[in-house]
Amino acid sequence: MTTKQIVIIGIGQTQVGEHWDVSLRHLAWQAIEAALDDAAANGLDAVNQIESVYVGNMLGGLSSQQDHLGALIADYAGLRGVEAVTVEAGEASGATAVRQAIMAVQSGQVDMALAVGVEKATDETGAEAIRSMTTSLDADFETIHGATLPAMAGLLMQRYMHEYGTAVADFANFSVNAHANGAKNEYAMFRNLIKAEKFPNAPLVADPVNLFDAAPVADGAAAVIVTTAEVAYSARMRNVIKVLGSAMATDAFSLHDRDDILHFNAVKLSTERALKQAGYGREVINILELHDAFTIMTTLALEAMGYAERGTGYQFDLNQTPLSTFGGLKARGNPLGATGVYQIVELTRQLRGQAGENQVPDAKIGLAQNLGGVASTAVTHVLGV
Amino acid sequence: MTTKQIVIIGIGQTQVGEHWDVSLRHLAWQAIEAALDDAAANGLDAVNQIESVYVGNMLGGLSSQQDHLGALIADYAGLRGVEAVTVEAGEASGATAVRQAIMAVQSGQVDMALAVGVEKATDETGAEAIRSMTTSLDADFETIHGATLPAMAGLLMQRYMHEYGTAVADFANFSVNAHANGAKNEYAMFRNLIKAEKFPNAPLVADPVNLFDAAPVADGAAAVIVTTAEVAYSARMRNVIKVLGSAMATDAFSLHDRDDILHFNAVKLSTERALKQAGYGREVINILELHDAFTIMTTLALEAMGYAERGTGYQFDLNQTPLSTFGGLKARGNPLGATGVYQIVELTRQLRGQAGENQVPDAKIGLAQNLGGVASTAVTHVLGV
Repeated sequence: MTTKQIVIIGIGQTQVGEHWDVSLRHLAWQAIEAALDDAAANGLDAVNQIESVYVGNMLGGLSSQQDHLGALIADYAGLRGVEAVTVEAGEASGATAVRQAIMAVQSGQVDMALAVGVEKATDETGAEAIRSMTTSLDADFETIHGATLPAMAGLLMQRYMHEYGTAVADFANFSVNAHANGAKNEYAMFRNLIKAEKFPNAPLVADPVNLFDAAPVADGAAAVIVTTAEVAYSARMRNVIKVLGSAMATDAFSLHDRDDILHFNAVKLSTERALKQAGYGREVINILELHDAFTIMTTLALEAMGYAERGTGYQFDLNQTPLSTFGGLKARGNPLGATGVYQIVELTRQLRGQAGENQVPDAKIGLAQNLGGVASTAVTHVLGV
Repeated sequence: MTTKQIVIIGIGQTQVGEHWDVSLRHLAWQAIEAALDDAAANGLDAVNQIESVYVGNMLGGLSSQQDHLGALIADYAGLRGVEAVTVEAGEASGATAVRQAIMAVQSGQVDMALAVGVEKATDETGAEAIRSMTTSLDADFETIHGATLPAMAGLLMQRYMHEYGTAVADFANFSVNAHANGAKNEYAMFRNLIKAEKFPNAPLVADPVNLFDAAPVADGAAAVIVTTAEVAYSARMRNVIKVLGSAMATDAFSLHDRDDILHFNAVKLSTERALKQAGYGREVINILELHDAFTIMTTLALEAMGYAERGTGYQFDLNQTPLSTFGGLKARGNPLGATGVYQIVELTRQLRGQAGENQVPDAKIGLAQNLGGVASTAVTHVLGV
């Protein structure tokens, strides 16, 4: 991009799961502390240099009766006085927070910024939880009729199967792969393997979406510290990863307003913009972290990105470009407003060569994509060594 | 500032009041439409040039079961495809949205951005409304004990009166001034005058804060379009107003964590940063729009900004630097997440010389300040001709 070169210098994450014993602010702090420790290990004491904090969160007000998380978390993290903002774009809130941190540094207003995604999603259950989690859909035209995200994914999958003559079993590979990778990730919620032959017969969630297809919503926090290449290189930092592209786009908000519900236009636009900034084509991407909340989402994203012809996304070759390398939303878990930050943390670990058992050999350039609602919002980042 | 010169090229607002007949998205659209019309009247058709939308909102999820307002409102406003984000910082959400729009343009990622603040606060009443509106305080340590913002303002005012020996009547001028200005503002919620001698005897809200002291929370939307000076001047636009400074700061989140509850440190820090960017001292400011949710907030803000010695802010000379020139939060009304955008719209009207009956003669440089919680967050903008 023609703007300032931004780099990632610190990353941190908590395990994804049910964190009933930890408050929202403390969960955020665990990820921030890990990111600060990581930056320190890479050669820079960031705590006194962070000037802006962007919090990605979706449910704070509804689940925890707590908004105004920017100032709250900045204070709790020992960063009192800094700029601090909550950013929200449904389930894409996490990557949006990372993008705002990047733009804050690019703007020249600050030299270093922290993005933290945090979600306490399991404090509510039943109807309350569903009410909170459907606020990323259209309250007046979708939610009022009982629509939920799994239901919308069910509609999409049904239509896809109708159009292209596919069966539920055809989508199994994405979930099998996610669980295989999640099994090796200490931060993942699900570390069990699933078998392709069991996939089509899992209990239904929203026909034809079933339990082995839908990612679990859970609690978690992840954090990323960004600065300019200048600051990082002046400090002779190690493990510096470049932000090569960052872009966000929207689509018609509701499925019923789209000309073609099987085309994710926000995914297309944000991918094109991010790759254009990076100056690369899709072919150089070694590793993909997509928003696999449901296998149909992954399928349609791969098609909109140009990785597959329409009607063939489910056949994507996972050996060609590794996907969901730490388990993705499906096995690592989907902590909503934190998910997009987890993706950036995981991609950074891969590009640094610090992915342990999950390491993708020779990963040099990766792409992470976080979606809000039914891909009404898409945020795409391209990172490189 | 050393960053790109940003200018305001379009402004719009709706009346503040009870908008039960208008949906959240339509209320936002009314302000956006007015801002687009205004930009067009100034010489530029902005609708196809806006690349980012920042929505300032506080209650969407709680009052309207609607989050993900960025994509929703962008779509409804005919801006499908653009980047769109909700930003939240309690009652400072509006100015935060403006600041993010400014930073997006400064980052070089986009050339034109829209900030819209929108709030539907009157859809809830009673305990539900109080629950929603107190989410800007600390849920775990303040709200749980029954604290509300008027209660916190009451604590501050009580302490102030104790420390400095002032009486309730001493704070009357701020409200009398706000209502006098609101009476001439067609967008204001309250257009009645109040008399100084009636002030101390108004019905109590949270002792010693009374009804004539507390700003009314209401519905409203306001919008601002920003771009670079280059774009505006190339298009030979009229009525272009410069953003000379933009800054945000936080304080200890809760009063009980502050060393000195009568010092608003976020106000001090954000004012200093914004004036430093502008390259001016306080003395060149012709006009002030402060966060007068309660007279004690105005008093303490003026002291923290250096306009008055400690213990004397309530004596501020309103003839020296006009304040709340369209009625402020007190008379124009306080539509929470939209309030900070109203302040920027009003200041822009003043600096353009388009303030009608409310015009401050020779207004050249103005300052707007939006606070979140008990000044846990402060956002300060300096605008100039």
